[in-house]
Amino acid sequence: MKMIDGGICAAKGFTASGVHAGIRKNRTKKDLSLIYSEVSASAAAVYTTNLVKGAPLLVTKENLAGGKARAIICNSGNANTCNANGVEIARETCALLAKELNVSEKEIVVASTGVIGQPLDITPIKNAIPELVKELGNHSDAAAEGIMTTDTVKKEVALSFTVGGKECKIGGIAKGSGMIHPNMATMLVFITTDCNISTAMLQKALSTDIENTFNMVSVDGDTSTNDMVTVLANGLAGNAEITEEGEDFAAFMQALNTVTVYLCKKIAGDGEGASKMLECEVFGARDEKTAKITAKSVICSSLVKAAMFGSDANWGRVLCAIGYSGADVDVKKIDVSFRSNKGEVPVCRNGAGIDFSEEIAKEILLENEIIISVNLNSGNAKSVAWGCDLTYEYVKINGDYRT
Amino acid sequence: MKMIDGGICAAKGFTASGVHAGIRKNRTKKDLSLIYSEVSASAAAVYTTNLVKGAPLLVTKENLAGGKARAIICNSGNANTCNANGVEIARETCALLAKELNVSEKEIVVASTGVIGQPLDITPIKNAIPELVKELGNHSDAAAEGIMTTDTVKKEVALSFTVGGKECKIGGIAKGSGMIHPNMATMLVFITTDCNISTAMLQKALSTDIENTFNMVSVDGDTSTNDMVTVLANGLAGNAEITEEGEDFAAFMQALNTVTVYLCKKIAGDGEGASKMLECEVFGARDEKTAKITAKSVICSSLVKAAMFGSDANWGRVLCAIGYSGADVDVKKIDVSFRSNKGEVPVCRNGAGIDFSEEIAKEILLENEIIISVNLNSGNAKSVAWGCDLTYEYVKINGDYRT
Repeated sequence: MKMIDGGICAAKGFTASGVHAGIRKNRTKKDLSLIYSEVSASAAAVYTTNLVKGAPLLVTKENLAGGKARAIICNSGNANTCNANGVEIARETCALLAKELNVSEKEIVVASTGVIGQPLDITPIKNAIPELVKELGNHSDAAAEGIMTTDTVKKEVALSFTVGGKECKIGGIAKGSGMIHPNMATMLVFITTDCNISTAMLQKALSTDIENTFNMVSVDGDTSTNDMVTVLANGLAGNAEITEEGEDFAAFMQALNTVTVYLCKKIAGDGEGASKMLECEVFGARDEKTAKITAKSVICSSLVKAAMFGSDANWGRVLCAIGYSGADVDVKKIDVSFRSNKGEVPVCRNGAGIDFSEEIAKEILLENEIIISVNLNSGNAKSVAWGCDLTYEYVKINGDYRT
Repeated sequence: MKMIDGGICAAKGFTASGVHAGIRKNRTKKDLSLIYSEVSASAAAVYTTNLVKGAPLLVTKENLAGGKARAIICNSGNANTCNANGVEIARETCALLAKELNVSEKEIVVASTGVIGQPLDITPIKNAIPELVKELGNHSDAAAEGIMTTDTVKKEVALSFTVGGKECKIGGIAKGSGMIHPNMATMLVFITTDCNISTAMLQKALSTDIENTFNMVSVDGDTSTNDMVTVLANGLAGNAEITEEGEDFAAFMQALNTVTVYLCKKIAGDGEGASKMLECEVFGARDEKTAKITAKSVICSSLVKAAMFGSDANWGRVLCAIGYSGADVDVKKIDVSFRSNKGEVPVCRNGAGIDFSEEIAKEILLENEIIISVNLNSGNAKSVAWGCDLTYEYVKINGDYRT
């Protein structure tokens, strides 16, 4: 398995494009992206658990009932959510694109990110689709830009791996939570692979993977209405189709996981206003559920997040977050340390503070990737969660809109 | 029922004091408080659900096993939590005070608020206890000051009410969440009344009441290790002892609730760095649980809190927070409006945006007490939760410590 270039166009048969359609007023940033597979691909998706769901998700879910897709279209600038005519607009987008690509509209994945509750005008999309299709090529970067909102960096990754003696490729792009416009709280991830895998196994791989990856990311605890992760697998690598668990499936899972973990860290580190990526690793848990609840509670704590912003080795807040997490842990067994490129400093043993150098702790915590390491000393299960610090900038981005 | 002066000294037989013991270094602020009842009082308490519990809570729980108390002692500046000798120090505090007051040490409620994980030195407490006892008098304000940490206002209330033809009085003081020192995340509430009520009914009243009051307050979603609410009822009002449900118990419950709701609002409005008190009222819910989950999810949303800081009528975030709350609601039936002293503006009907004047909304949201009103249109149950906005100041207080 090795990292390669090409993003979502790395896998055989996939092309992409991104254009400025004018959905975002007074801007030149690309705001409409397309990902296309030259052959029909197995398609799997997971959607936000928020009861308030963006209209594009509902339409995508309908379309993917057949388990196949040819293209993904995504706009930024408007979430097409909480609008009276949202489903209609999403369906019209699919129909227009399907016509231009000469594919079935039931093979289109449609996604939107941006403002909630403001009608999405079909006109700029309609006008831009011909250009969008014409531009299709090795343009993963353009597609990655087209789905960005307040993201400060493009999130793109690709790698090659081997299944049944055949070289396969997998790549992904993502956008994280950015809400400089109201309610842009969307995590969108699009993954493409030329690995040959059945829709059922692809969905199984994705649904299993996200439990330990995207579901363990939290920027601010708010679950978006438009979150979606989609994988298209077009089979062009030529491996024997993966239709059951086994060595090939495991190889695919590993590749998928490498892509998703990479994107998770990128999303976490580029959280709104974030100055640092936080990772909480929990081990020594009695079971995986306990490890997950614990890791997520720490990563979601506003107090822990603010302490990390201040590079403050405030382990008491970590313990406090574990204590209220609902996980059944023995507080008197908990060890905590902070780690970064500058080293590691143990700060708590058996649930009580230990002497440590504030200077060394500070140096470690001034880095921009911090690992909060928690040993529950009660078993062998472990988990990892990702997040970011809480900064002035977060408040500014989310509080100053329209003022 | 009418509001009166006197705080925790309003009820017959209660005196209080607050002194500067020197637990907080380099400060002159009072940091040790005492509340005393001249006769033994029925005592009830509720404690944090955090598995990490402050040592004073453990000792208080032991002491209140008998259901009676004479005094409450509380220090600020150190939470006496996650220390190897915490329980020992809390017990010693009780013993020293009991000796000075000539009461049983099993009749002492002990509480602490401040830094977690730093040993609490008994010396300043020991030295201050004689003065603390000597100062006992009509000094509710001094006691209220002694328990403050980063609270910006004293939280004190009292009222008179009638039970069985007798005038009773009830008063309370509180400190809210303030964490300018690490891990000061404590809500402490001490209530005194001269109403004659059995320990069992007092506990029942308190445990019932907090479900709709203190448990519906959230400043930042972090549940402290040291939260505690205690009520002492010394019976000196001379009413027939309340030993069962009925008219008298209802009158007491109403008075208690008036005190607790007042303190909840004070705590919420004085949340760390808060510029506004937020109240989320949910009605039309199919059941109370749904109403509570919904109200709390809205009040806890970082995005809603930041929007309120920016006086932004961002109803999409309210809908989003309801959607991920876990409450089983019909999104298409939800109405939302914002209200303050300046008026009310409906912003969402049937789960979709409606036209409203941004100017009027802004004027309403610039006030410092905002009500987010949510009608689920699915039944008759309702609930209220209290919180505050998310501000630069919150991040500063919690991020800049030791920097």
